[in-house]
Amino acid sequence: MMRVAVAGAAGYIGGELLRLLIAHPEVEVVGAISSRFPGKRVDGVHPNLRASTDLLFCSVDEVAECDVVFLALPHRAAMTQIEHWIQRAKLVVDLTGDFRLNDTKTFARYYGSEHQAPHLLDSFVPGLPELHRERLRGADLISVPGCMATAGVLALHPLVAHDLIDTEAGVQLDARTGSSGSGSTAGPANLHAERSGAMRVFAPTSHRHEAEISQHLGLSAAMTATGVEAVRGVQTIAHSTLRPGVGKLDLRRAFRQQYAEEPFVRVVAHQRGIFRYPDPKILLGSNYCDVGYALDEETGRLTSIGALDNLVKGGAGNAVQCLNIRMGWPETFGLTFPGLHPL
Amino acid sequence: MMRVAVAGAAGYIGGELLRLLIAHPEVEVVGAISSRFPGKRVDGVHPNLRASTDLLFCSVDEVAECDVVFLALPHRAAMTQIEHWIQRAKLVVDLTGDFRLNDTKTFARYYGSEHQAPHLLDSFVPGLPELHRERLRGADLISVPGCMATAGVLALHPLVAHDLIDTEAGVQLDARTGSSGSGSTAGPANLHAERSGAMRVFAPTSHRHEAEISQHLGLSAAMTATGVEAVRGVQTIAHSTLRPGVGKLDLRRAFRQQYAEEPFVRVVAHQRGIFRYPDPKILLGSNYCDVGYALDEETGRLTSIGALDNLVKGGAGNAVQCLNIRMGWPETFGLTFPGLHPL
Amino acid sequence: MMRVAVAGAAGYIGGELLRLLIAHPEVEVVGAISSRFPGKRVDGVHPNLRASTDLLFCSVDEVAECDVVFLALPHRAAMTQIEHWIQRAKLVVDLTGDFRLNDTKTFARYYGSEHQAPHLLDSFVPGLPELHRERLRGADLISVPGCMATAGVLALHPLVAHDLIDTEAGVQLDARTGSSGSGSTAGPANLHAERSGAMRVFAPTSHRHEAEISQHLGLSAAMTATGVEAVRGVQTIAHSTLRPGVGKLDLRRAFRQQYAEEPFVRVVAHQRGIFRYPDPKILLGSNYCDVGYALDEETGRLTSIGALDNLVKGGAGNAVQCLNIRMGWPETFGLTFPGLHPL
Amino acid sequence: MMRVAVAGAAGYIGGELLRLLIAHPEVEVVGAISSRFPGKRVDGVHPNLRASTDLLFCSVDEVAECDVVFLALPHRAAMTQIEHWIQRAKLVVDLTGDFRLNDTKTFARYYGSEHQAPHLLDSFVPGLPELHRERLRGADLISVPGCMATAGVLALHPLVAHDLIDTEAGVQLDARTGSSGSGSTAGPANLHAERSGAMRVFAPTSHRHEAEISQHLGLSAAMTATGVEAVRGVQTIAHSTLRPGVGKLDLRRAFRQQYAEEPFVRVVAHQRGIFRYPDPKILLGSNYCDVGYALDEETGRLTSIGALDNLVKGGAGNAVQCLNIRMGWPETFGLTFPGLHPL
Repeated sequence: MMRVAVAGAAGYIGGELLRLLIAHPEVEVVGAISSRFPGKRVDGVHPNLRASTDLLFCSVDEVAECDVVFLALPHRAAMTQIEHWIQRAKLVVDLTGDFRLNDTKTFARYYGSEHQAPHLLDSFVPGLPELHRERLRGADLISVPGCMATAGVLALHPLVAHDLIDTEAGVQLDARTGSSGSGSTAGPANLHAERSGAMRVFAPTSHRHEAEISQHLGLSAAMTATGVEAVRGVQTIAHSTLRPGVGKLDLRRAFRQQYAEEPFVRVVAHQRGIFRYPDPKILLGSNYCDVGYALDEETGRLTSIGALDNLVKGGAGNAVQCLNIRMGWPETFGLTFPGLHPL
Repeated sequence: MMRVAVAGAAGYIGGELLRLLIAHPEVEVVGAISSRFPGKRVDGVHPNLRASTDLLFCSVDEVAECDVVFLALPHRAAMTQIEHWIQRAKLVVDLTGDFRLNDTKTFARYYGSEHQAPHLLDSFVPGLPELHRERLRGADLISVPGCMATAGVLALHPLVAHDLIDTEAGVQLDARTGSSGSGSTAGPANLHAERSGAMRVFAPTSHRHEAEISQHLGLSAAMTATGVEAVRGVQTIAHSTLRPGVGKLDLRRAFRQQYAEEPFVRVVAHQRGIFRYPDPKILLGSNYCDVGYALDEETGRLTSIGALDNLVKGGAGNAVQCLNIRMGWPETFGLTFPGLHPL
Repeated sequence: MMRVAVAGAAGYIGGELLRLLIAHPEVEVVGAISSRFPGKRVDGVHPNLRASTDLLFCSVDEVAECDVVFLALPHRAAMTQIEHWIQRAKLVVDLTGDFRLNDTKTFARYYGSEHQAPHLLDSFVPGLPELHRERLRGADLISVPGCMATAGVLALHPLVAHDLIDTEAGVQLDARTGSSGSGSTAGPANLHAERSGAMRVFAPTSHRHEAEISQHLGLSAAMTATGVEAVRGVQTIAHSTLRPGVGKLDLRRAFRQQYAEEPFVRVVAHQRGIFRYPDPKILLGSNYCDVGYALDEETGRLTSIGALDNLVKGGAGNAVQCLNIRMGWPETFGLTFPGLHPL
Repeated sequence: MMRVAVAGAAGYIGGELLRLLIAHPEVEVVGAISSRFPGKRVDGVHPNLRASTDLLFCSVDEVAECDVVFLALPHRAAMTQIEHWIQRAKLVVDLTGDFRLNDTKTFARYYGSEHQAPHLLDSFVPGLPELHRERLRGADLISVPGCMATAGVLALHPLVAHDLIDTEAGVQLDARTGSSGSGSTAGPANLHAERSGAMRVFAPTSHRHEAEISQHLGLSAAMTATGVEAVRGVQTIAHSTLRPGVGKLDLRRAFRQQYAEEPFVRVVAHQRGIFRYPDPKILLGSNYCDVGYALDEETGRLTSIGALDNLVKGGAGNAVQCLNIRMGWPETFGLTFPGLHPL
């Protein structure tokens, strides 16, 4: 069994990692690190794990060594602890924003502070199996992308890979997210009475994840982000324009080809039924990212859509998928829950 | 114009008082007191009042004198400030729990501390127009009941007043509430991700409001309380048993007679339609308390139901209704909003 | 008192019209027309109106004549009945899509059928006080715009009127809406279990309301629309690019100037607080359309935002505002409810 | 592999059965029977199963024979088809209400019609592993209880089994449920705009499931039921009175002993944390029934609480658990999903 630790185990991404890792057939959780709750029961904070685990949270010092560590920390905490973990773990999977952008200037613009470990930026492989599977097989440092970025990248990737859209014009994205994306720390803005039923434009322009999308796809992405009524779930809508001569069949072929072999991407673009386009409602708890698209044939404007559970394919599940790839295990190990309908 | 101040104006009940009082034809708000936000704009905290008011919050010392003060404070704060307010205002309307129970021992049991102003307990008139309208006309000190208590009392009042139920056996009540009832202070338990979609039994037995119901109706009430998914809205269900010989017609007559003239109580007990029994969903923002009932004729078990908006008829609106009565104004002044459907 | 009838009075827009008109100081409702429920009580369908009205629904034939009729009918029903109503009412306020587009070809493209009364298209004045107040003063035929169109137009209008954005490039809009927008007729897609918590992209491209926005502003608008978890509420986000040389101060001035005198448009663009940008959450039941904007100074990309209650400013309330203007009454008559917070 | 068919496979319980059975290691689904959608893809109706199955719905005639059939039909349909299925399947697991009550008179009272197969009533074993595990090992006909009944029975069972409560006085229960309990057929009452945010008392007295609780526990149960805002999830609260002399330790011992070995019942009664009592919010998708209790020591009144996912432990999951028991497989086969937090 592989010995795995989770730093930031009391947060929402941390809890989801624990849920997936505890049930994973090849893994043993040797440390659920929390600076807030050392010595407390894990299931006191993550009540869905009652009867699944007797684990206690521990302090960082109690994890002497491990095979893998997942860093589910606040942004900027990973880059200050990274040297510590490189010495203690063979594989580091970072879920913060610290090693997602490979350019220090872009990092400074979007995160508002200088990078603390710029020499490591090139060593991290992006935790995006659909774009970087081969590199992940040999990776020792993995940086899992942001939830809205993953949805956006996967919604656009076939279009870019098959050169179907006008990338010079830039791509406008519109992301919506549930409240769990802002983490488990209480504050006035995420009080239930304030957040419930909201359509809160918290990033009217320049959401951080646009920089990731731009980097992964080699184009200029602009993204707004809105909190809508949901706990889990992210949906990213991308607006682009087809290159002249590109038609519906090209679109269909590109999406099919790109994702035919992907275990966790489904192409959803139906003429009938209630769930015609990607909707996180049916993805909660699952590791799927559904992607779809629709074309305004009159104008050539294309809308492509990605949806996922921000804590799973947008975080913990994607990280476990990367682990599976890195270890040569079946890619779906521990990730087979299909989601619920209705929910 | 009557000069009115609100203490605790930055809270949810405080905000609702401001909404109602700013639009009230006979009232001028001379003080929106907040210890947290003195000098800040009221509409920064209560954004629904943007364009309705330019008021700033003030400190308690800035309100030298006024005709009426509403105390929308945390429990236990009213009884420590009460002497202060008695000297500065002709009429004090308290919305805390401090002067609801007229017995110090009961108060100590339910609130966990000694009463600080026991000599005043008898001077407060309960802010329940449907039971105490005449006394309210001459009151200088008014104590508005708890939201679930009001719904429960109004659901049971006709039964007790007409002697239809077996009160010796006690009455079991089951109350459900939205999240605004726990106030505007953020904490882990009312984080959106934790509170959303919950059915949280926060008082499995002995909810405080049962003591009020017992006192008002002269019986032994037991109440559980559960937080359900809603921001506003309270529903209290009361289980009782009919006295032998009492039938459906007696029930009907009792409810009709009791509330025929009441401007803010509607009897809702229909055989058809979607809204057959009282449901706070259609009451939000309104000052109505809907009441209804259903009888299991085979066993004589009776379920009676009260529903209201906890911030309006369960708090601020009820307080304004009491003010209207006290001043001899039309009882519906400032309270005519009928609620929305659908919402 | 002006004698007013509502056709389609059993629908959600119809119910909202009744709520507003019943409380309106200058109006008497003489007909609540419903083909589904003639002879039934209005408050059986609109339970929020219990105790507010004893009206019964009537058939269309029972309304011999009236001063004003509001057509809250399904799309395509207004244009077939329009001659009937022109003969019976002095003022017709249409809330369907039938007379919103002044070009029959565009109508056919977006509504999928030929127009039945093209000769009347030019006679209708758009029910948009912020753009057409003067024309509304003399109008006999008024066509109230679509809810998402109103939010989008008002979010963009100052930018176009002050020539601040590059309109040649077209404007991309992204609209979100609650479930009441799809009306009160039950079907599999709006079953609670299916619709609850959804992020349903029901118009990935070419939503009808884009044609209205294009027409009102003289540009090429593209709009997607998504159903999110809410019953009421619409938010439309518009993405545009500033003309060279235009800066933050120009934006500020344009929005301020445009809406300084508007009774129902508030500019909401704050650096602090929970409600920094327009959010329908605090607008439900009110006639406000909040508008705001944010600029990515690095790229010149501008996001402007409009939010409203689709049944009020996006429908019934806007219609009543038009009536007030037409009759020379104070524009806010019957429309003073400010909205609730929290809700 | 055991050959399994599901009748009523297009409903919500049917879909949940398919989700569980498709992933079950010992089972092959040979028939997803739907009279509404024969020949259509299963994942067109249950979109969470996209990529999990290529199954098509079939008509009842296409299932010649099978080892097990699950009847997820409307009430009253099972008893008319039962002879058909007894001849075609070795094991029949019925999820309707038809064979839950073993007394035809009680059936007639609660279901409003005569029983069509009274001779079979005694042959059905209740699908309640916690009460009838041994009998289930040899059962050929299993009747899975109602969702609210299961939650209520499990909340009361230790109290009755250990003789701790006064059963003569009867037990008052209060159940709350999400909207999926009313099935997948659209109608005005479960339209999203009507059902959303509701607290709808749909059974103020005498809910059907009270008859099951009375039967299983040998007491007189009275139950109200309210629809609250949720899609999945049931919570049943039971009010009883302790026998003289019974104390907290007895309660604790009874619950511990009763459920210590149960794989799917957890006792949840904590002094701290956010999830102190059973709440379906953390159970969705899982087969757990959480039970808890609280005592008002002053009066001896006891509140016990059961919570579950109505489609899983309240239906499909419980049915699969019964199948596992019947076949001698590990009881948790196919049922290990622990639930999500937050959700």
